[in-house]
Amino acid sequence: MRYDLYYWPMIQGRGEFIRLALEEAGADYVDVARQGKRGMTAMQRLLDGKGGARPPFAPPFLKAGRLVIAQTAEILFYLGQRLNLAPRDEAGRLWAHQLQLTISDFVVEIHDTHHPISAELYFEEQRPEARRRAELFWRHRVPNFLGYFERVLQGNGGRFMVGRRVNYVDLSLFQTVEGLRYAFPRRMKRFEKKVPSLIALCERVAKRPRIKAYLASDRRIAFNQWGIFRYYEELDR
Amino acid sequence: MRYDLYYWPMIQGRGEFIRLALEEAGADYVDVARQGKRGMTAMQRLLDGKGGARPPFAPPFLKAGRLVIAQTAEILFYLGQRLNLAPRDEAGRLWAHQLQLTISDFVVEIHDTHHPISAELYFEEQRPEARRRAELFWRHRVPNFLGYFERVLQGNGGRFMVGRRVNYVDLSLFQTVEGLRYAFPRRMKRFEKKVPSLIALCERVAKRPRIKAYLASDRRIAFNQWGIFRYYEELDR
Repeated sequence: MRYDLYYWPMIQGRGEFIRLALEEAGADYVDVARQGKRGMTAMQRLLDGKGGARPPFAPPFLKAGRLVIAQTAEILFYLGQRLNLAPRDEAGRLWAHQLQLTISDFVVEIHDTHHPISAELYFEEQRPEARRRAELFWRHRVPNFLGYFERVLQGNGGRFMVGRRVNYVDLSLFQTVEGLRYAFPRRMKRFEKKVPSLIALCERVAKRPRIKAYLASDRRIAFNQWGIFRYYEELDR
Repeated sequence: MRYDLYYWPMIQGRGEFIRLALEEAGADYVDVARQGKRGMTAMQRLLDGKGGARPPFAPPFLKAGRLVIAQTAEILFYLGQRLNLAPRDEAGRLWAHQLQLTISDFVVEIHDTHHPISAELYFEEQRPEARRRAELFWRHRVPNFLGYFERVLQGNGGRFMVGRRVNYVDLSLFQTVEGLRYAFPRRMKRFEKKVPSLIALCERVAKRPRIKAYLASDRRIAFNQWGIFRYYEELDR
C-alpha cells in the first residue's frame, strides 16, 4: 500500500508525528505538498471539500487507497496496526491511542505558550501573555505531562511506552522531547533529570537505523519559527 | 455489560459527552464519583495509578469489565460500536471518530476563552487576556469549526452527522451548542442563523425521548461556573 501524506511543506508541525512512523516502518509514502505547486493544489482541493463527502478539517491527513483520514492521533491509530507500530490486541491498541491523545493535548499546550491569545495574531502581538503562559506551563503542565509519561514508561519496564517493541507512542515522545529542547533549551536542560527513563527512550529512538537515516536526510525539515515548537529567548528563562 | 463512568461529580465537563451517549443508548451505567465519598476515593485511586499499569492521565475514564479507558473521544469510539451509536464499517467508525476529535479540539478552545493563560489561575487573574481571546475566538474559530460541521451535516443529507441514524457525534454537537448558548448567549444568538442545519439537528436531539428524559432528570447537572462552558458577561458582548 502506498500512503499519501498531506501536510504543510515548510514545517514539522503535527505532520512530523506521522512522518516518523512512516519512516520507522520503511513505508512507501509520498509527502504530497512537498512535491511542488501541484502538491499544494491537491491538498487545498481536499481541504475545500472537493475530494468527497468526508473532508478533513485541517492537515495532516492521509490518503490510503480510497480512505482519507485526518487527526494526527487517528492517523497513527490507523497506521499503527498496518505498520506494526502498535500492539495487536484491542486493549493494547486503545491504550496506545489513549497515550497518543494525551500527547496531542500536550502539543496544543506547547503551541499555546507562544500563542496564548490567538493563532491569528503574531507572537509580537501577545508577548506579555506568552511570557505568563510559558511560566505557568513549565511550573505545572510539563511536570504533569512528562511526569505521567515517565511513570507509564517505568511501569512498562522502561524500554518502550507500550508492549515490548517500538511503537508510534515512543516515536511521538521522541519528537515532543526534541521539540521542547529546541523551544526551551535552558528550561528543558534543567528539567530532563526528572524524567531519566523518558530521555533514555528518546535517545534510543534517535539511534534506530531508519530514524537516524531520516533525521540526517533532507526529508527531515529543521525546527523553525513557524511550527509548533518555536524558540523565543524571553520564554526560556 | 455494566459501565462505570468516572468523572468529576459537580460539573458536566467532558464527562457529559459520555453521559449523553450512555443515556441515549439506555445503557446500564454508574456515574461512580457521584455516588458519594467512596466514589471519589475510587476515582482518585485509579488516577494515582493504583488500578494497574495503564493509569488514565485525567477524567473522564470508563471501566468496562477489566478495561479502563480514558480520553473522551476514545471512550466514545469504544462505546459507539457497543451501543450502536456509530457506523459499523471501519471507514465509518474512523470518520465519526475524526469528527469527534475535531469537537475535542474545539472544546479546548472554548475552555481557553475564559482561561487563556492557565487553568491554575482564577478567571479574575486573566480577565483582559480572556476578553481578547474570546473576541478572536468568535471572529475566527467559531465560524471555522461550526461552519465545518454545518457543511459536513449538509453533505450527509442534513439529518445526521454520520450515517443514517443518530450517533455520538450528533449528541456531542448538541452538547457543544448548548454549552455555547450558556456561555455566550448574545453572541450565539447572532451566530446561529449561519448554521441552520446544525441548530435543527440539536433541536431534534433535545427531543429524543431518552435525551429529553435525561435532561429533565437530576442526573443532568446544570451548566455552572466550574465547567468548560462558563458565562461571563464581559466575554459576551
